[in-house]
Amino acid sequence: MDISVGEIAALVGGSVTGEPALRITGLSGVKEAQAGDLTFLGNRKYLAYLETTGASAVLVSTDFESAATGASARKERAFIRVKNPYLAFVQVVQRYAKGPEAYHPSGIHPTAVVGRNVKLGRDVALDAHVRIADGCVIGDHVVIYAGVYIGHECRIGDHTVIYPNATLREGVTVGARCIIHAGAVLGSDGFGFIPMNGAWLKIPQAGAVVIGDDVEIGANSAVDRATIGSTAVGRGTKIDNLVQIGHNVEIGEDCVISGMTGLAGSVTVGNHVAIGAQVGVADHARIGDGAMIGARSGVISKVEPGRVVSGHPLMDHKQELRMLAGMRHLPQWSRRIRDLEQRILALEEELRGKSEDHS
Amino acid sequence: MDISVGEIAALVGGSVTGEPALRITGLSGVKEAQAGDLTFLGNRKYLAYLETTGASAVLVSTDFESAATGASARKERAFIRVKNPYLAFVQVVQRYAKGPEAYHPSGIHPTAVVGRNVKLGRDVALDAHVRIADGCVIGDHVVIYAGVYIGHECRIGDHTVIYPNATLREGVTVGARCIIHAGAVLGSDGFGFIPMNGAWLKIPQAGAVVIGDDVEIGANSAVDRATIGSTAVGRGTKIDNLVQIGHNVEIGEDCVISGMTGLAGSVTVGNHVAIGAQVGVADHARIGDGAMIGARSGVISKVEPGRVVSGHPLMDHKQELRMLAGMRHLPQWSRRIRDLEQRILALEEELRGKSEDHS
Amino acid sequence: MDISVGEIAALVGGSVTGEPALRITGLSGVKEAQAGDLTFLGNRKYLAYLETTGASAVLVSTDFESAATGASARKERAFIRVKNPYLAFVQVVQRYAKGPEAYHPSGIHPTAVVGRNVKLGRDVALDAHVRIADGCVIGDHVVIYAGVYIGHECRIGDHTVIYPNATLREGVTVGARCIIHAGAVLGSDGFGFIPMNGAWLKIPQAGAVVIGDDVEIGANSAVDRATIGSTAVGRGTKIDNLVQIGHNVEIGEDCVISGMTGLAGSVTVGNHVAIGAQVGVADHARIGDGAMIGARSGVISKVEPGRVVSGHPLMDHKQELRMLAGMRHLPQWSRRIRDLEQRILALEEELRGKSEDHS
Repeated sequence: MDISVGEIAALVGGSVTGEPALRITGLSGVKEAQAGDLTFLGNRKYLAYLETTGASAVLVSTDFESAATGASARKERAFIRVKNPYLAFVQVVQRYAKGPEAYHPSGIHPTAVVGRNVKLGRDVALDAHVRIADGCVIGDHVVIYAGVYIGHECRIGDHTVIYPNATLREGVTVGARCIIHAGAVLGSDGFGFIPMNGAWLKIPQAGAVVIGDDVEIGANSAVDRATIGSTAVGRGTKIDNLVQIGHNVEIGEDCVISGMTGLAGSVTVGNHVAIGAQVGVADHARIGDGAMIGARSGVISKVEPGRVVSGHPLMDHKQELRMLAGMRHLPQWSRRIRDLEQRILALEEELRGKSEDHS
Repeated sequence: MDISVGEIAALVGGSVTGEPALRITGLSGVKEAQAGDLTFLGNRKYLAYLETTGASAVLVSTDFESAATGASARKERAFIRVKNPYLAFVQVVQRYAKGPEAYHPSGIHPTAVVGRNVKLGRDVALDAHVRIADGCVIGDHVVIYAGVYIGHECRIGDHTVIYPNATLREGVTVGARCIIHAGAVLGSDGFGFIPMNGAWLKIPQAGAVVIGDDVEIGANSAVDRATIGSTAVGRGTKIDNLVQIGHNVEIGEDCVISGMTGLAGSVTVGNHVAIGAQVGVADHARIGDGAMIGARSGVISKVEPGRVVSGHPLMDHKQELRMLAGMRHLPQWSRRIRDLEQRILALEEELRGKSEDHS
Repeated sequence: MDISVGEIAALVGGSVTGEPALRITGLSGVKEAQAGDLTFLGNRKYLAYLETTGASAVLVSTDFESAATGASARKERAFIRVKNPYLAFVQVVQRYAKGPEAYHPSGIHPTAVVGRNVKLGRDVALDAHVRIADGCVIGDHVVIYAGVYIGHECRIGDHTVIYPNATLREGVTVGARCIIHAGAVLGSDGFGFIPMNGAWLKIPQAGAVVIGDDVEIGANSAVDRATIGSTAVGRGTKIDNLVQIGHNVEIGEDCVISGMTGLAGSVTVGNHVAIGAQVGVADHARIGDGAMIGARSGVISKVEPGRVVSGHPLMDHKQELRMLAGMRHLPQWSRRIRDLEQRILALEEELRGKSEDHS
């Protein structure tokens, strides 16, 4: 890239303080930015870096104080004022940064092994050592990286990208424009056993997995197939790395599930739900639309729509903050309760003594 | 499938309320069931779905009230009464649902690469891009999916299935009838280092992994090899997805270990132990036969046989439930203790005042 | 191996109690050791095994009581006294145990697929079904196991080993003498989205991953690429299995991060930091040099250098131990506080009554 500050301002709808003719040749975080780079100030915490950054231009919010701008403005640095600096930066990145598309394989590599009755769409890319089993339907412009396994009768929607060494077992459906990251496993057996004479009888996992459009599944995450019916992830939902989705889970649309979170079997999650990292959700729990679950929470049963909860035990998020503060004081409370008990005993004895005096 | 309700009743040893001639053409959960489907009512929580389900037949328990049956019984729906409806349903699924066996690869794919001195049993299936290193012994009817790596001198028992992109490092022994799910890693190095002049000296991990018969290892789980000796998983034990088993761990028979649980190095687990999801077990901890560990617990040292424990800190499960209930009240306790302290101070001063009055 | 106890003592710089001519033919843990084996006593907890072990020689510390030695010393058992028995045992293992090097593949397997403009160093091993994309630079003596994917323009330092089915996405740099375990994913997209009209706009993840020399990354762990700039893991740092390293995380040198721990985006970790298992570190948190974080802790913001902390909420480790002890008493505290309130109320009423009497 080699464009002027003025051109960037035009792209993001911002106004320039400083020299609009300055040339921008790179994009960077505020800490690492060098001369020629565009960066952004998305969070006041990073204000101090303005003094040390080498950036030639900084996207700042419209209410950014001119004093601060002035202090760090120099001939060789411009500011571009926009409503949302981070979003504006993303727009520039989307336009000018070399994205992963630049590295996607293309064509059908001769070492890819495709089964019988497979329908491949237009411009499908199958990299080396891909294995596609019988009866699959692969949409247009689908990109499948090396080492991916696609089981029998899977369906992959248009423009979906599947990164290396991911596994889709038989009967998995993935929508359009999805991203399945490296090492992810879709359609592994649900974890279901019945105790039988001291051993465990395996419950056949005969169901499917259905992933909607525009879904992202993180690296080394696992989505189990349903026992009967389908494990479902709704349109637009984004799932981070090392997440476990149990059998017969149903997740709605436009949810965000952070890393290392686990949803046990038959959990239902509404639309627009945000679940933090390292959360555990017990089997058959139900999370309503728009709920937010803080990181490391334990969800046992039900979360009403729109609630903001966290903790283990789960509670209103603000209540949890108070509870966590309280926990720090537990050791001294023990002392204080014991002290109260001694003092009250002393009072009781003194009063009883007085009563006897009076009698 | 296309069989009558009467034939199903005969298979599971149940009695029919309604029309035994009704045809069943599918199997489904009670929520999703359509006309022609058999479903089951395994849990009273799902009773309400009886009114809305489209199922043509429902497996219910023998003590299911005839009133409820009557209410939702119609010409086009039959009930089959059995002792354990879920188990009966599993029997029908095992008999009629198309299981994963239908999709197993067969034969030796020409792209599979087999090393020297490998003994392959009868009817072994090696799918595309399988790699088997030198000196392995693979039993009869073993199925190895695409992209699996089997390291030097591994031994795989009869009828074991290994799903795509799983890795068995050198010297791993797996019993008969095991299922190793996609992406699982057996025999990775144990995590052992010695501090040495400010850096970490790697302790060679020269041991093995030994998995008994009828074991299941979940997707993207990892079982580390021993430093010296063997990491061992006993016959019949079932391990869920994303579980970590550290070096030199010894797990007994017929245990169940749920998803995202981690056992650190040298942990020993007895027989018939159940460990919930997201549990952490510290190194060298010992869990006795038949113990049950609730989800998200932290096990530091020892759990006696047969105990039912949970929590972090670990305690009797019923005690933990009371403790969790108590935690919700922590913030108000702080207030109540402070209030008590003020009131008792007031009393003490008042009494002291009185004493002075009397003097 | 077949060497004498005396030769081992010479190797580790120890002194022999017993017969230096005894032959040692194997290495084993104290529990499993048989006649002919060398073992070690690294921890007093295992002292009891000295009575039952079959080992022919035991490495013990120089201050080991001669009484204990005498009690279990016999004609067929020798003791070797050293400063650090475990370290001495490791030295013997390093010298005599058959390590993984014995099983490394060698040469370029004909099924390996190497892209354009790839520079391969001397003595590189590429096993079956390896895929190396265009523009990579692979150092001397690098070993890449079957099924590994190396994306465009990656750089791998000399003597690094990458185990089966690991994935390195485009633009990942790995130093010399690193070990990347099976199923690990380096360079997956960071998890970043911006809310936009009720859906989630993907933030392009255009950065890189830079791994220093002598780093180890565990099985099925994931290290996300940076949004802009680099996710960095410093020289000598060891990362266990199933660990998540978020985008733009910066980890210093010689750190140890145990299994199932997650570092969210933009976390910075100093040098010589030890993080226990199943820890969660929130985005932008900063952990200072030499800090130690106990297993299962939750780190929200900042840990000062050298501190030893644990728990959730995070606190001084000793304070957490007291807090955990206190938590067990929570249910009875509820009772004790209620009891205090009743007794103080009774006292207040009694005093008020007296006051009225006096008036």
